[in-house]
Parts: sequence; C-alpha cells; structure tokens
Amino acid sequence: MNRYQPIYDIAEICAQKDIKQAVLCPGSRCAPLVIAFSRHPQLEVKTFSDERSAGFIALGMTQQSHKPTVLLCTSGSAAFNFAPAVAEAFFSQIPLIVFTADRPAEWIAQHDGQTIYQTDIFGRHVKKSYQLPQEYDHADAQWAINRIVNEALNISQQEPKGPVHINAPFREPLYPGKDETITFRESVRIIHDSRPEVVLSDYQKKRIQDQWKSFHNVLIVAGQHDYQHDILGALQHLIHEHPIAVVGDVISNLHPLEDVVRHADVFLGQASDDVKKSLRPDLLITYGKSVISKNVKIFLRQYAPRIHWHLQASGAVSDPFQSISEIFQVSPFTFFSQLSLFGNDETFERQKQANYKKLWEVEERRATRTLREFFPQPELSELELVGQVLENLPVNATLHLANSMSVRYANFIGLKAAQKGIRVMANRGTSGIDGCTSTAVGQSLNSDSPQFLITGDVAFFYDRNAFWHNYPLPNLRIVLLNNHGGVIFKMIDGPGSLPETEDFFVTKQNLHAKHLCDEFGYDHLRLDSKRKLKNLLKDFMEFDGRTKILEFESGTDLNKNIVDHLKQKIKQSYEL
Amino acid sequence: MNRYQPIYDIAEICAQKDIKQAVLCPGSRCAPLVIAFSRHPQLEVKTFSDERSAGFIALGMTQQSHKPTVLLCTSGSAAFNFAPAVAEAFFSQIPLIVFTADRPAEWIAQHDGQTIYQTDIFGRHVKKSYQLPQEYDHADAQWAINRIVNEALNISQQEPKGPVHINAPFREPLYPGKDETITFRESVRIIHDSRPEVVLSDYQKKRIQDQWKSFHNVLIVAGQHDYQHDILGALQHLIHEHPIAVVGDVISNLHPLEDVVRHADVFLGQASDDVKKSLRPDLLITYGKSVISKNVKIFLRQYAPRIHWHLQASGAVSDPFQSISEIFQVSPFTFFSQLSLFGNDETFERQKQANYKKLWEVEERRATRTLREFFPQPELSELELVGQVLENLPVNATLHLANSMSVRYANFIGLKAAQKGIRVMANRGTSGIDGCTSTAVGQSLNSDSPQFLITGDVAFFYDRNAFWHNYPLPNLRIVLLNNHGGVIFKMIDGPGSLPETEDFFVTKQNLHAKHLCDEFGYDHLRLDSKRKLKNLLKDFMEFDGRTKILEFESGTDLNKNIVDHLKQKIKQSYEL
Repeated sequence: MNRYQPIYDIAEICAQKDIKQAVLCPGSRCAPLVIAFSRHPQLEVKTFSDERSAGFIALGMTQQSHKPTVLLCTSGSAAFNFAPAVAEAFFSQIPLIVFTADRPAEWIAQHDGQTIYQTDIFGRHVKKSYQLPQEYDHADAQWAINRIVNEALNISQQEPKGPVHINAPFREPLYPGKDETITFRESVRIIHDSRPEVVLSDYQKKRIQDQWKSFHNVLIVAGQHDYQHDILGALQHLIHEHPIAVVGDVISNLHPLEDVVRHADVFLGQASDDVKKSLRPDLLITYGKSVISKNVKIFLRQYAPRIHWHLQASGAVSDPFQSISEIFQVSPFTFFSQLSLFGNDETFERQKQANYKKLWEVEERRATRTLREFFPQPELSELELVGQVLENLPVNATLHLANSMSVRYANFIGLKAAQKGIRVMANRGTSGIDGCTSTAVGQSLNSDSPQFLITGDVAFFYDRNAFWHNYPLPNLRIVLLNNHGGVIFKMIDGPGSLPETEDFFVTKQNLHAKHLCDEFGYDHLRLDSKRKLKNLLKDFMEFDGRTKILEFESGTDLNKNIVDHLKQKIKQSYEL
Repeated sequence: MNRYQPIYDIAEICAQKDIKQAVLCPGSRCAPLVIAFSRHPQLEVKTFSDERSAGFIALGMTQQSHKPTVLLCTSGSAAFNFAPAVAEAFFSQIPLIVFTADRPAEWIAQHDGQTIYQTDIFGRHVKKSYQLPQEYDHADAQWAINRIVNEALNISQQEPKGPVHINAPFREPLYPGKDETITFRESVRIIHDSRPEVVLSDYQKKRIQDQWKSFHNVLIVAGQHDYQHDILGALQHLIHEHPIAVVGDVISNLHPLEDVVRHADVFLGQASDDVKKSLRPDLLITYGKSVISKNVKIFLRQYAPRIHWHLQASGAVSDPFQSISEIFQVSPFTFFSQLSLFGNDETFERQKQANYKKLWEVEERRATRTLREFFPQPELSELELVGQVLENLPVNATLHLANSMSVRYANFIGLKAAQKGIRVMANRGTSGIDGCTSTAVGQSLNSDSPQFLITGDVAFFYDRNAFWHNYPLPNLRIVLLNNHGGVIFKMIDGPGSLPETEDFFVTKQNLHAKHLCDEFGYDHLRLDSKRKLKNLLKDFMEFDGRTKILEFESGTDLNKNIVDHLKQKIKQSYEL
C-alpha cells in the first residue's frame, strides 16, 4: 500500500459524502492532499494564492452550492490567513472543511521553515478541531484518520452548521514518483449521519394553542436567513391564517412576502414614543441570525414583548433583543407550519391581531411613500444609486451586500415583493469588510445566474485579491460606491464632529477602480453624472460575458446629507 | 475624572516607556484608544486600512526603530487579520504591543456586529495575552489597567522579545464630546524594568578554558541576526585571536567580516562526502535564529559535532541541527568577548585549528571563484539580476529579502565584506510570503536611507495592500522577479515532474507591475533586455524622491536551468 493511502482516502471520503469542490492554496507541505484532491475524478478543484481571499471564496462557493467546500493550505502563517473567513463561516453557520498541512510535530518551533503553532489555531471559531496522526503504519492510525474525517464532515453539517479544522502533519517525502499512480478505494469506510425529523410534541402544540388566543399583538422578526421557498411558503400560509405582523430586514430574504414590513429601520428611527408604544408586541417570535437594523434592536429592547419565543433547532441561542422567554428547538418551517393549523375562530381575538398588524402596515406605507416621494433628488447620491440598482436587478440575481454602509443602504431601500427569486447575501457573521468581494466572487464561480455586489471603496480595495486568480467571472457585476474613505464614520453618532475623524476614522484613500479594471480586463463603467445613469445601468445589466464594475465617486458629505435629509422627511411625515 | 481616563493613561504609559509610534486601523469600537494615541503629543500615529498589511508595517517599523510599536484595531475579524504579522513577530522576536478593541464581554456571540472570540485570539503566538477590565469605576480596575499595560510593555522587551496582546472591551459611548479635552497625567505610575548584566560565571569560564584546547575543529554557525556592530566587533576580535571558521548566511548580517564563509549553501550542496567529512566540526558554536541554507542543516545533521554549544541569553532553545549539548545563557557578544581573552599559546593546538579553518576557506574560495566565472551568462536570469543588484547596493541600504526564492537567490550570491553598513532583513520567523512588502514598507517609513526589497511576483501581489495608504515612500526600491508563478516549486525536488505542478503548485498568475505603478504613482522600470540592465540599474539606484519598481519578467524554466547549470559548475569545480 502506498504510504500516503490513508491521506489519499480522504478525497474519496469527501467525494462519497457529497463534497464536490476543493479550494487549494499552493504550497509544498500540503502536497499529499493537493495530489489527493486534484486527482480525484469526482472533485473539482480551484487554486488561489492569497489564503485570506481563498477562504472567503470557499465560503461564497458553499453559499451557492449548499454543500461544504474543502479548503486547504500549506503549513505556516497560511493557516492564519484563513482565519477571517473561518470566523465568518462560524458565525454565519457555513460548513467549511479546513485542512491545514503541517510539519511533523517534533519540528514545530525548531527553526524549520513555515512552522507556527497550528493546533487549535482557529480557537473557538470552528465547531471542532482535529490533529491527524503523522505516522500511518499502525492500523489504529489509519482508523483514526478515517474516523476523524468522517466525523468532521458530519459535524460540519449538523445544525448549526459551521467550519471544522483538520491539521495534518506530513513527513517527507511529500510527492509521489513521476510515474506513480495513486488509487482511490471505493471501499473506504463511510460513517453516514442519519438525522431524525424534529417536530413539535403534542404537549408543545397544546401549550401553544392554549396560549395563542391570549396574544393580541403578535410580531415575527426574522434575522438573516437564506432565501428558502419552504419558509416563504410557510410564512405566507401563516399570515393568511393569522393576522401577524412580520418584520424582515433585507438580509432576511423575506422580500417576496407581500405583507412583510421591510422599512422598520427607516421608520423606527424617527417614530415618536407613542407610535413605538403602539407597536409593542405581546408575543415576539424570532428566528434566523442577526438583524441589521439598530433601530429594530433598540425598539425591541425598549418596548420589550411580554413573551418572546425563539425558534432554533439546535445550538447556543443569541438574545440580541434581551427578551427571549422560550426556545422552541424546531426549525421555523416546522413551527410556522404547525401554527397555521391552529384555528382562530374567535373573531374578537382575530380582530385584535389584525388591528395590531395594521399599525405596522400604516408605518410601512408611510415610510414607503416618503421614500418614493423623496427620490429622485437633484444630485445623485449613493443611496439613490443603490435604489436604482435594486430596482433594476434581474429576477434570478444573487445580491451580495458588503459591510458596512452598502448593506445599510440596501436595507433602507429594500426589495419589492415582485422581486421574487433575488437572493440576498451578506457577511453578517462577523460583519467584516475583509472578504466581501471574495465571497461574491465565490458565489459567482458557482452560479450561471447574475451576481451583484454592492460595496464601498474600503471593503473593495481591502479585498482586491478576490480577482487575483485564473477563473473568469462573466456573471459578476460590482457597484462600487467610492467616497474615498469610510463614510460610515460620518453617518454614526460620535466621530462626526471630532478633529481626528478625517485622519483616523474615515481614513481617506485615493484609489479608484480604473487601474484595477485595466489590470484584470474588466469593463469600467464610470458614473460621473446623473444623466448617464440610465444608459450606464442598461449597459451594466447586460450580460455579455464581461465582468463589469460600475463606479460612482462622490463626497462623504453629500451622502451624509442625503441620508440626514431623508430621515428628516420621515420625521416630518409624522407631523403632517 | 473622565470615564475613559484609565484608557487615556495607556498612551501616557507608552510614551513614558519610550514608545514613539502607533499603527492604527480604523474602526469605531477602538475609538477611546485611537483618541488617546492620536492626541498624545509624544506619539506619532499612522493609519492603515488593511490590518494584515498594517501588522507587518508595524513590524518593519519596529525593526528599524528598535522600539516596540503599538498596533491597534477595532473589534471583530480585524484582530485575526493581524495574526500573520503577530506570528512572524513572535518567531522573529520582535516586540509589538497589540491592542484589540472589543465589545463588552456580555455581547460576545449575541448577534451584535463585529464580535468574535478575541480573548487569546493569537494562541501561543504572543508572549502573553491580557483582557482589560470593562468597567473603570473601582480603583482596583484602574490599578489593573495600569499594571497590565506596564507588564505587557516590560515583557515584550525582555529577551527573547516578542508581541503581547491586550484585548480591551469598551462600552458605549465611545467618543468624547466635540469640545471635550482629554488630559494625559504625567504622574501615571510606571513600572520600570531594571535588567541585570548577565556574564559568564568563573566556573563557566574555567570549564570553557579547560576544554578549549581539546577542540581542533571549531566552527561557528550564525543564524539570522540583526546587523550589530558589537557582535561584528567581538567576532572580528575572536577570530583574530583564535583561528575559527565562521559560517554566516546572508541573513546573519556577518558579511562585513572578511573571513566569514558566505557560500556554504553553494558548496555544501555539491561537495563530496570526503570534503564534508573533513569539514566536520569538533565543536560547533551557534547563535541567532534560523539559517536559510538547507544544505548547511543537512551537513550538520549528517556530520554532527562532538560538542555543540548554543548561545542564547534566555527563552526556549531550538535545536535545528539536532546536536546541542550545552546552552550558554549569555549573549553571543558576552561569550565571544570572553573567549577572545583566553590565551591560545599552544602552537600545536592553534595550528590544528588554523588547518581546519583553511579547509573552509578553500571551499569558500572555490565557490566564490566559480560564481565569479559563471557570470555573466548570455541570457539574463533572476539569479544574475539579484547578483547585479546586490553588487550595486549603496552602503547605507537596508535590504529586505522576500520569501521564498528571493532570499535564497541572495544567499547564493552573498554580500561582500566591503559592503559594511548594509543591513539584511527577511521575515524568517514564519517564512511566509504574506507580509514581505509591508514589512519593507514599514522599514522605509522609519528610515531616511535607501530601502531595497527583492521579491518574487507571488509574494509581491499577495501583499499589494502594502501600498494602500497615504504615506510617501521616496526611499523604497523594489526589484520584482516576475516569473508569473511560484518558481520555487520548480526548484525543489518532488513537484518538478508531476502533472499537477503547473496548475496546483506553481499556480501561474498573469499580473505585472505596470498597472500597480500607475495606480500608486510609482516609477515602473521594465527590464526586458539584458543590455538595458546597466542603465536601468543606474536609474533605479538614483534617489530622486520617487518610489521605483524594477520589474524583470522571465520564464520559470530559464531560471531553473541557470541555477541547475551553476550547481553543475560547482560540482565540476571539484573534479578539476
């Protein structure tokens, strides 16, 4: 048997467990795994030189494929460059199978090249971390490798999903001979992970039903969630049966629901205490990950519900509104489907619920109307451009929203119910700017449909190595909001007026995308006057095989003023 | 007292403990420390948006200033982007004071923006990691902050030096009022770290002297070390008193010593077993960090010394030659100075030592002659270009050698004894390619003298955000060896002949530096024919306030062939 057969088997285990893709970063120490993954006939491999970017690309690929992606690097600091993406994957619950090649343990910190302390290098940002044996002769070592890889793959896909780390020390020689063939053994042992169906117990159902009529003001708030037809269907059915107000940020992917409140961030920031008091829920039902809107968070903390049910099948629960009183360990789909079945005969109760829902609808309509009337403004701003882009998105598009102003702008505007099929993504696990472009690139690589990224200049240039590889991105469209610095520091309270704001918070940067477009052969669409907008957008939305970057340069102050002005208009809308 | 006074005091402690510079990365959570560092009159602060690059820039700044640099980022994945530089600093023993701002502990993993698990985030790659209190009211909390910062600064500068990490959770509000002045209290408590002189004991001296005459073949091998006049002087004096062979890689910074063996890597790779046997030391004395040369390592492991003394004042000792028998816990300067004092009256012993030293000198001369005769070759190669650049360096230059082929090429060629004053740097702590350019940029920012970086294309484009900031680099000169991929994978044994080498190891990349130069306003000197070399080098070496990149594009095979050809010539030199 080939010395590295237990390592080559890893590729076979991955393939049999339905992994389709591996992202490899070049190096010598990782050669046995590179050989295994690249030669396996059922695995597709791609190579990227910057590990930081590679990690986020793998993350984006997984978001599109809904299958774990293998991520592999060589020994040394390479592993640490994966860390930002691993942390994002952990908090975003995205399964990545991270392999880091290593020197044999006895050579760590012995002045051998490219060694650091790789064991547990990602700390608490992986679901589990493993160390492979470095000698394969003993049968137990071979069993351990098989068992570890099986377990890691299983764990990564158990809810809440997430990254796992396998550190693999390799002893030289690392490469097979020139004419040596390596074999993949189909007979390799697979540990299947057989998952039960989790449903509400009869006792739970009864309790819910008993309590249900005591709630008049029922509010569902959705956190970040994948675009999923089954949840949309279940919620649609639920709100048809029961009049319930549903608040959904743009990253909740609830925009296809006609009734969803999409502008809570807009009006809750300006509404009076009386209005907010009237919107206070009796029962709050939450699911999903984070909400973007600080105004929603502050509102719910201030006007806390009497009862707060959180729906989450498993794992540690976050309590961002500080009010959870009961955790239902089922999927939101299961819960909502069940809730729809409960009759709501009592007209009085139903009417009360409907009244509460109407209050939200009134606010939503007010905000929508104000937004509609506000635009167009004489001068083009980032907010208005984002609005135009959102309105013109093709129905099958994926929209990636970069941190931090881009995702906020888009949440301000929102998507319309008619824009079914548009999937919204954002790296809100850690809310970093370090891999937004790479994540969008990973999504593009795994899709034939249009991929859009809306990003600010700091996030964009930070992660420019997203483009440094040999794979075409014909379906990628980037809207670059270039205000030459961190406009967010002008938007939030606090730094706005301090003497160090320009130098140490906004941090002016002078780049624009023209050189980058030339370098990578992308189309550069420069939006330098409002009257060009229509034509440029038309060109931008044309899918002719070219990667396109639509760049809009504008001043920080203009953008801040427009947002302030809009907020004022919202405020005024309450005074009429 | 201002609520944040204990935090503002940190800047005062740093200033009083002789820290001069802080590298800040923008963010909101870090505001209290940004305010403190940027407003302190004795601290110079610089801002960089990409934390990965910022970490290495701080490292390069410290290498030039020989003072710890403060490195600060906001909460979230920003901290993980510091990790590659922190690991390099740890293994390179460079003091960095790393502050990471954090959310209050109760908000970790509660779906609040930009939070990850920051406590101990750098694992074993810092000398110590601290968590600051998040409430400052209690006098003990104020004492703790003062004590922790004092201790961290002290520990970072104790040998072996290294990075320390202080995680600082901040509760809102983070910003002072618009017209609020903040004060720095000169009376802040400082804990001075008073270090003793460490000298050899009388007993040690006697033992060394007693043993000394039993060694006929005495070899000193220097690992990576800063350019230091005192060590150079002590060694110069020592080898004047005792005929000892001294082997020094280019990163040992021993090139000013006339007698140093600088081409051990060149000839040990080709010399016969008989020659190597004759070069076997009785006594090996080592100091410093890693050696580049794999041939030196293999030779010493194979022809192990009878006795191996390692000189290191404190800290864990690495044993890369697998032969250490005694650790002297003193500085090499102390040890060599002492050794010089021992008389070496016995002519017989002295003659034996001299004979051994001559054997090394013969090999060194053979290699030097072969190298001299080998060049110029008809076609320009990377190796020959590196030779030309090295030969033409101004005497007060700093030379940063990127991983991985650049530092090997330069070690092959070596610097001459006449090139006193040239300081050689390389990130050999982790030997990563992830921050070589940024480190060179940091060195440039802290120096008025000429700064050179020799780098390959993968390292160069990997770390291109090194240039993404607002600070001019008039003294920086970059030699870019662009072979459009990882040429090292062609050089080392193993991957050279495999079908996946081109795609998954070399990883072809198509960029060249022209666009980058246009983008940042640097001079692009394209070396596309050998006859232009002389004029281009002349222009390149002119210091006229412009940043210059000299780019040489060439094929992987040519460069491999030249190195192979040279090795053959060395081999042949033994057959004459």
